[in-house]
Amino acid sequence: MASADGGPATIETIARRAGVSIASVSRVLNGLGGRPDTVRKVQAAATELGYVPNAMARSLRGGRSGQIAFAMEDIGNPVYVAMVRRIQAVAREAGFRLLLHSTGADREEELRALRSLADRHTEGLIISPIRITQDHLDELRRAVAPVVVIGSLPEGIALDNVRVDSRVGAAMAVAHLAGIGRRRIGFLNGPLDTVPGQARHQGYLDGLGTADLPVDEELVEFGEFRTDSGADAALRLLERVPDLDGLFCANDLIAVGALRALREAGRRVPDDVAVVGMDDTELARVTWPTLTSVGLGSARRGELAAELLVDRLGEGRDREPRWVSVTPELVARESTRS
Amino acid sequence: MASADGGPATIETIARRAGVSIASVSRVLNGLGGRPDTVRKVQAAATELGYVPNAMARSLRGGRSGQIAFAMEDIGNPVYVAMVRRIQAVAREAGFRLLLHSTGADREEELRALRSLADRHTEGLIISPIRITQDHLDELRRAVAPVVVIGSLPEGIALDNVRVDSRVGAAMAVAHLAGIGRRRIGFLNGPLDTVPGQARHQGYLDGLGTADLPVDEELVEFGEFRTDSGADAALRLLERVPDLDGLFCANDLIAVGALRALREAGRRVPDDVAVVGMDDTELARVTWPTLTSVGLGSARRGELAAELLVDRLGEGRDREPRWVSVTPELVARESTRS
Repeated sequence: MASADGGPATIETIARRAGVSIASVSRVLNGLGGRPDTVRKVQAAATELGYVPNAMARSLRGGRSGQIAFAMEDIGNPVYVAMVRRIQAVAREAGFRLLLHSTGADREEELRALRSLADRHTEGLIISPIRITQDHLDELRRAVAPVVVIGSLPEGIALDNVRVDSRVGAAMAVAHLAGIGRRRIGFLNGPLDTVPGQARHQGYLDGLGTADLPVDEELVEFGEFRTDSGADAALRLLERVPDLDGLFCANDLIAVGALRALREAGRRVPDDVAVVGMDDTELARVTWPTLTSVGLGSARRGELAAELLVDRLGEGRDREPRWVSVTPELVARESTRS
Repeated sequence: MASADGGPATIETIARRAGVSIASVSRVLNGLGGRPDTVRKVQAAATELGYVPNAMARSLRGGRSGQIAFAMEDIGNPVYVAMVRRIQAVAREAGFRLLLHSTGADREEELRALRSLADRHTEGLIISPIRITQDHLDELRRAVAPVVVIGSLPEGIALDNVRVDSRVGAAMAVAHLAGIGRRRIGFLNGPLDTVPGQARHQGYLDGLGTADLPVDEELVEFGEFRTDSGADAALRLLERVPDLDGLFCANDLIAVGALRALREAGRRVPDDVAVVGMDDTELARVTWPTLTSVGLGSARRGELAAELLVDRLGEGRDREPRWVSVTPELVARESTRS
C-alpha cells in the first residue's frame, strides 16, 4: 500500500490530504470516533492513499489474518482440553494462531461464533456443538469462511466433518460391564435432546440387547454432562435401584461425580458397583480407583479437524468436503477390575 | 451508514458506482482480493457510499466490537477454568463476548495477544503471564486498549491489576504441615524463573522459619506446573529423602502427580506423607484422598479483573489504575487429616 508520492501512507500524509489534524486522524483510525465530517474526510483520504487499518488491510489483501478459532461447549470439560492441545499444535505448525470460544452450549453464542467469521478476524472455525438446530444449519450453510464441524451432522451439509460413533462406544461400555458379570447396569446420561445424549442412549440399549439383559427404565437417570449433576443422579439411582452392580456414565465428569456419590453411600468400586466413564480424559487417571473409560479419540478428532481446516485454507481450497471418523476404544482401569 | 440515494449501501449500489460486477464487489468486500484497480474502485465506491465491512464499521463507529479477551497460560489447568467462568459471567452481564487465548506461557504468544489489541477486534484484554519480561512491560505500556493484569506487576506500571500473595499462601501450607507434626517437609515447585515459582519458594522458606524447621535444599525439587512433571519430581524426592513426611506442592496439578507417585511407591497419604496443593481447584475434590489445598481466590480474581476491565471500558475510562488483592485461604481435606 503506497501513498501517491510513493512512500507508505502514514497518519501524517492522511492528515495533510484530509485537511484535518494528525490527532483527528489518529482518533479515527484507532476507532475512537470523531465529528461525522472529520470521520468521512479521514476515511476518504485513507482510501485514496491506500491506507487501511490492520484488520481491514489484511482482509483487503486477501483474507489472511493468520488466526483460526475453536468454539467448544465448556472449557471446564477436559475432553476439550485434549482437542485444544492438538488443534493448537497443528495450527502453530501451519503458522496460525488459535482463538477459543467457550460457548456453554448456548445456541446464541455458537451462532455468533459462526456469524463472526464475516469479520475476517479469523480465517476459519472449528465448532463442536452438542445440539444442532435449524439455525445452526442455516448459519453453517451461510458461513463466509471455512468451517469444520466436530460431531455428527445431518446428511446434505457439505462441510468438512470429524465424527466418532459414540453409540458404538456406549455399547462397548455396557458389553464390558456385562462381560465382568454385572447384571443391573445403570446409565447416567446427559440431556436426551443433545446429539451425544441420544447416541449414548441408543448405544446403552444396543449393549443391553447384545448382552441379553432386559431394558429397565428404572436404571436410567438424566442430568447435565457435569460432575455435580453426575453425583446427584447417582444418588437418585442408588435410592431407586439398591441392587445396582454396574454403572455406565455418559462422560468422565458424570463418572467422577458418581464415584464421589458411591463413596459417600458406602459402596465399594468396583466390588459393589463397577463404573465406566466416557471420553477417556485426564481425569480417568486421577480418580481413585482410576476410571475405566471409553475413549472417543478427542485428541485425534482435534488433530483431524485442524488438519482439514488448514488444508481447506490452503491447497484444499476447492476440494470436496471430507467426512472422517475415529473409532471408540475402551481403556480398562481399576473401576472395573475384579 | 446510508448510500447517496438514502437507502443503506449494498453490494449492488457499490457495484453500480464502481462500474464493476457484483461478484467483484463481493470478492473484494469478503477479503478474497481481485485485480488491483478493481480493489481500488470498490474501496473508493464503498467509502463514498458509506459502506464499510463489519470490523471496520465498528471500529470507525467508535471502537465497539463487544468483545474482550482473556489470555491464560494453559487451558489444561483448572485454575484458569475457575477464572474463565467468572470472567465470562461478568462479561456477559455487561454485554461483552469473551475470547480466549491459551498461550502455553509462550512469550511470543503473550506479546501477540497484547499487540493484537491494535486490531480493535477486542476492546480490552485480561492477561495472566507467569513470566514478566522487559518485552511484556514495553507492550503493556504501549497497549492501545485497556489491559488488566492478573498477577504481580513491578512498581511503576500504571495498569489495573489483581493479585494474590502466594508467598503468604505457601507459608500457610508449610505451617499447616508443621502444625500436624510433620518435620521433613518437602517442596515440589515449578520453575524458579517464574513469578509464582519465586513467590512460592520464598513462602516455603518463610514457613520453615516460622515453624523453626531447618532449611534443607535436599527437600526441594523443581519441575513444570504439570501433573506428569509433579509425579516425576515426587519420585526423585522420595528416592533422595526416604524419611519425607510432609509435601507441599506448588499447584494442584503437581499435587495430583505426587499423589499418584506416592501411591505407586507404597506410601500412604496422609499417614506416611501428608500432602498440600495450591490453587484449590476442582481437582482437589476429585482425588483420593481428597486434597488439602491453599486457595488463591482464582474465581474471585477472575471476577475482579473482569469488573475492572468492564468499568474501564465504561464509566471508569479515565480513573486512576486500581490494584486489588485477594487473600489466600487453606482448605483442609483428607490428604492432611490424621
